[in-house]
Amino acid sequence: MTSSRIRILVCLTDNRPEPWIEGLRAALPEAEVENWAPGAAPADHAVVWAPPQQFLDDQPGLRGLFNIGAGVDALLKLRVPPQTQVVRLDDAGMSVQMAEYVCHTLIRHFREFDLYEAEARAGRWSYRKPRERRDFTVGVMGLGVLGERVAKAVAQFEFPVNGWSRSAKAIDGLRCFAGEAQFDDFLGASRVLVNLLPLTSDTRGILSRETLLKLNGGRPGGYLINVARGAHLVDDDLIPLLDSGQLAGATLDVFDVEPLPAGHPFWSHPKITVTPHGSARTEREASIAQIAGKIRAMEQGAPIAGVVDVERGY
Amino acid sequence: MTSSRIRILVCLTDNRPEPWIEGLRAALPEAEVENWAPGAAPADHAVVWAPPQQFLDDQPGLRGLFNIGAGVDALLKLRVPPQTQVVRLDDAGMSVQMAEYVCHTLIRHFREFDLYEAEARAGRWSYRKPRERRDFTVGVMGLGVLGERVAKAVAQFEFPVNGWSRSAKAIDGLRCFAGEAQFDDFLGASRVLVNLLPLTSDTRGILSRETLLKLNGGRPGGYLINVARGAHLVDDDLIPLLDSGQLAGATLDVFDVEPLPAGHPFWSHPKITVTPHGSARTEREASIAQIAGKIRAMEQGAPIAGVVDVERGY
Repeated sequence: MTSSRIRILVCLTDNRPEPWIEGLRAALPEAEVENWAPGAAPADHAVVWAPPQQFLDDQPGLRGLFNIGAGVDALLKLRVPPQTQVVRLDDAGMSVQMAEYVCHTLIRHFREFDLYEAEARAGRWSYRKPRERRDFTVGVMGLGVLGERVAKAVAQFEFPVNGWSRSAKAIDGLRCFAGEAQFDDFLGASRVLVNLLPLTSDTRGILSRETLLKLNGGRPGGYLINVARGAHLVDDDLIPLLDSGQLAGATLDVFDVEPLPAGHPFWSHPKITVTPHGSARTEREASIAQIAGKIRAMEQGAPIAGVVDVERGY
Repeated sequence: MTSSRIRILVCLTDNRPEPWIEGLRAALPEAEVENWAPGAAPADHAVVWAPPQQFLDDQPGLRGLFNIGAGVDALLKLRVPPQTQVVRLDDAGMSVQMAEYVCHTLIRHFREFDLYEAEARAGRWSYRKPRERRDFTVGVMGLGVLGERVAKAVAQFEFPVNGWSRSAKAIDGLRCFAGEAQFDDFLGASRVLVNLLPLTSDTRGILSRETLLKLNGGRPGGYLINVARGAHLVDDDLIPLLDSGQLAGATLDVFDVEPLPAGHPFWSHPKITVTPHGSARTEREASIAQIAGKIRAMEQGAPIAGVVDVERGY
């Protein structure tokens, strides 16, 4: 009955497990891959999305717990066995999607393409005075794999770019700020704010009235792009800032409750663009290849990228 | 009465001349800069946009004729004095705008953000199956300063990119095709077609039914982005291809007659996005600096970039 094969469980709330199981079996023919059910035999690794607490309680011997997304905030709300390494996806096709989403939003806002389209729908050929790129400094919060890729994509369009991260970083083409001490300077020097932070106890509610008022040196015209987690934003703070004209607009891909409930004021606000948490979707093929590679490396005792510091929260 | 100062005339139809005159005077304090009027004294150089024939007939001794745009097709319809060098703008802030415009259009189409926005306006949280980047090869026609910049910006978002030019080129990250012999191969291997060609007798009407039918290996789903000149496109060929579903859509910034006349079917077609010739506007400051530098170089007998081959047409 005993087996020396690596044993992997899949436990994916809201996702069909079959293609993941088949993909992992193909990528790791030396392993045994099964869908989790209560009472499943102990496994070495698990591939999860929003598993129930019971899953973790039943599997105290997991060495690797692979989250099929970049943000592990939902997973870290659970009690994870102490010796289990929590591993997030590094990129797996998400950074290019994030760069697309942010550049599309930024260019659309800067070039006022939404207003041009409205004029064209009315059959009107009308120019607007072009705005100056140097007046639209972009500030990227969070300089992990996704944040760095987004910042570089934006810089390619010759916007001035600031970056802010918890620990100091130096990235070509960016003006980097770090830590709480430089947060206000970062905000004051940025007009378009792009949030790519992990959600932790330190960053929950960070997009508050106080923060958003500091954008653009306190002058009106700031713009918010939230592509990280809904709980970063204090929903009730955003709308008055838009209504007063202090903020020019916001594009939101993530929400405290998802799907965004019917009747939520974000849906109908003329200065808010809502998208259904699709800025960067997990690409199954690339994710399976990445997870399989990391499982093999762990089994050989080699170091892997993306191991989460559970205390820090990312 | 004689003066050894360089003499420059400004003749700008549809543009206020004053800021150009002031800018040129500031950039070239050694020169005399004036607005043209019939009977003006002979000048050495001229800075023009769509000048009348009379201007050129009155100024047979011009050494440099500087067009404040990248496309010189309107200027070459006139009789230009034979020893006058026609010079176009090289970039002067236009290439980044063109890259923005094309990337915004491409990403919007590829990611279906227009459909997402329509769903959101209706208060609906709904996913669409993501499309594969590898199925959206972008083909850039014209690999001058603007075309190369656009191609590189698109490649950064990991789309496969083809380029087509009159003479063979080799550009990193692009699959390059050249000349009439490779035109069909280029079209067949491209799905999103971006036109950045100069308008010449060879390229007039190049965006015809025959051309557009070859996109995407002849399969439906091609998309047209025309940011060069309206006369590249056979207007009457486009609409049936959109209506039949052969083409998925078109974004047009340029038109045979501008402003696009009221009632033209492009205005109201649901698969056509119209913008009012604003994909890349001339930036006065950068253009003045560039023209001033070229005038100084010419006066010193140094070679300059952007001299137009009048026979070839660009």
